[in-house]
Amino acid sequence: MNEMDLKPPYLLFLGDAANDLDAKTALGLVHWRPEDCVGQLRYANCRVDTGLPDMDIGQARRAGARSLLIGVAPTGGALAPDWEITLAHALDAGLDVISGMHTPLASLPRLANAAYRSASRLIDIRRPPENLPIASGKKRRGLRLLTVGTDCCVGKKFTALALHQALRQRGVPADFRATGQTGIMIAGGGIPMDAVKADFLAGAAECLTPDQADDHWDIVEGQGSLFHPAYAAVTLGLLHGTQADALVLCHAVGRRQIDEYPDYQIPPLEACLEHYLAAARLTHPAARFVGVSLNTGDRPASARAALLQDVTARTGLPCVDPLALGVDPLAETLADWRR
Amino acid sequence: MNEMDLKPPYLLFLGDAANDLDAKTALGLVHWRPEDCVGQLRYANCRVDTGLPDMDIGQARRAGARSLLIGVAPTGGALAPDWEITLAHALDAGLDVISGMHTPLASLPRLANAAYRSASRLIDIRRPPENLPIASGKKRRGLRLLTVGTDCCVGKKFTALALHQALRQRGVPADFRATGQTGIMIAGGGIPMDAVKADFLAGAAECLTPDQADDHWDIVEGQGSLFHPAYAAVTLGLLHGTQADALVLCHAVGRRQIDEYPDYQIPPLEACLEHYLAAARLTHPAARFVGVSLNTGDRPASARAALLQDVTARTGLPCVDPLALGVDPLAETLADWRR
Repeated sequence: MNEMDLKPPYLLFLGDAANDLDAKTALGLVHWRPEDCVGQLRYANCRVDTGLPDMDIGQARRAGARSLLIGVAPTGGALAPDWEITLAHALDAGLDVISGMHTPLASLPRLANAAYRSASRLIDIRRPPENLPIASGKKRRGLRLLTVGTDCCVGKKFTALALHQALRQRGVPADFRATGQTGIMIAGGGIPMDAVKADFLAGAAECLTPDQADDHWDIVEGQGSLFHPAYAAVTLGLLHGTQADALVLCHAVGRRQIDEYPDYQIPPLEACLEHYLAAARLTHPAARFVGVSLNTGDRPASARAALLQDVTARTGLPCVDPLALGVDPLAETLADWRR
Repeated sequence: MNEMDLKPPYLLFLGDAANDLDAKTALGLVHWRPEDCVGQLRYANCRVDTGLPDMDIGQARRAGARSLLIGVAPTGGALAPDWEITLAHALDAGLDVISGMHTPLASLPRLANAAYRSASRLIDIRRPPENLPIASGKKRRGLRLLTVGTDCCVGKKFTALALHQALRQRGVPADFRATGQTGIMIAGGGIPMDAVKADFLAGAAECLTPDQADDHWDIVEGQGSLFHPAYAAVTLGLLHGTQADALVLCHAVGRRQIDEYPDYQIPPLEACLEHYLAAARLTHPAARFVGVSLNTGDRPASARAALLQDVTARTGLPCVDPLALGVDPLAETLADWRR
């Protein structure tokens, strides 16, 4: 679905990334596609280390890199002038440049010129396909799971990728369906839901999760949160269009307010589950939660079991910590779905 | 807000419109801006009559028309070849062409050439402003009302325009805030919410309804419906971004399923009110419904009072039929809001 024709291996561009959150695209690539990453390019004041060897563009080229992938979100969304020089140099050296920013790379004259000179490609991940349909609301064959969140950055993408991997390991037919720029870079395809015109959101989600065999799972990366004052619409369109059979609620321990929106409290988990189900049932009355995915962050390992048990006691659902302990209990539920 | 610089008076282009629903843009202009409409241009097989004099382009020019306004939705969304010829002729005659279609007029070479030759303008209403912000979720001064619907085409725009007019007649400071193509043509400005990229939906709604004086009403045209499998996301973004103090639920008598989606039942009105309030409270906990707007369609006048009373009995809210009986009871509530 909407494959992107990306050329690995990648040189990950980190610029002057200040922290791991800014560099989450690069870190996601290294975690899920280590075989596709040859090195990192960092400026002197960069505070993030992916663990890959540091390389300049010439070294990366000799190490086999075919693309420079922008692995950091620029502050304020716009490219700094020194970034443009580095990217133009990469294009001149024959590397494609891959970006997940809203701003199209070709709108920057220096990059457009360099791409024209070199015949290297400018690849904007955050450009949705043309001619998306209006949603039909019709039921499709196959099974779908959507990860939903109490907030942004709580583990929706990670949980979906971990579930996809666990199903594949069990021999269950499954696809990971990416809906954001990092997920699309990892998967090599998908639809950037946040850049879709509002009329076509649910239709895009239907396209992303087409008819499949009865026992096939589409594991869909969720976006935003129904409790987010800016992004709830993206979440709702994805929820309605996927018609998810199974939902997993993702939450970060200790998060009480929406990140960067201190006036917005995250409701209790039980209320979150109810809100999501009420919305999901519009297009799929049998939708249900199969579990909670808890990001326990920097809590000590000794505290984790109690945190997970507490969530299970409150919600009646199995609770996993995908980064620390994996997602096996949820994968078993999905593998046994039709039995 | 996002003014469009339209040049009335208009020649309304109806082409071969088959019914009033297809021509709702033209009919809306004639109803709300009669002083801006000089004539209609219809093909021989057109089945709609706005009541304006029939004119060809030369006659319209002599009658003072400065723009041709496409008042009909093309079947399938694409312009027929004979339409293009007519529009190019209008441009050559010095008229601007105003369109509410998703397809940009300048993407059609015949029209782009004609506009270049004549220096007439191609105006796409359905193009959102650049650089819309991400929603802040912050409370703004002033009062806001949003019309919401059980479905599309139930009277949300009409109700908002009628409320705006009734407030102005009472000397209450108020603006009509248009969110769809017809509303924007009527108001001469606004934001086409359905064409906004999903990330920016709630932010666009915040922009559309900025800080105002404490007793000023922004009367916002609603879009779609929370119960629509394709468009609920548009509705939610608008609901969250406007932070409406007052809501009016719009419904068409006899409508039981979502139009063109026969598998989707419209919930009972009481349940609709609850769903909307639950969603609205995320960004404005004090949001409340002030009434129901009922489109009684072709029901006989003798049946209307009972229909309205039935809705009031079920919901506890005043119920109006804006087309047949006006919106005075609701306008009084708004005018008295801060007293």
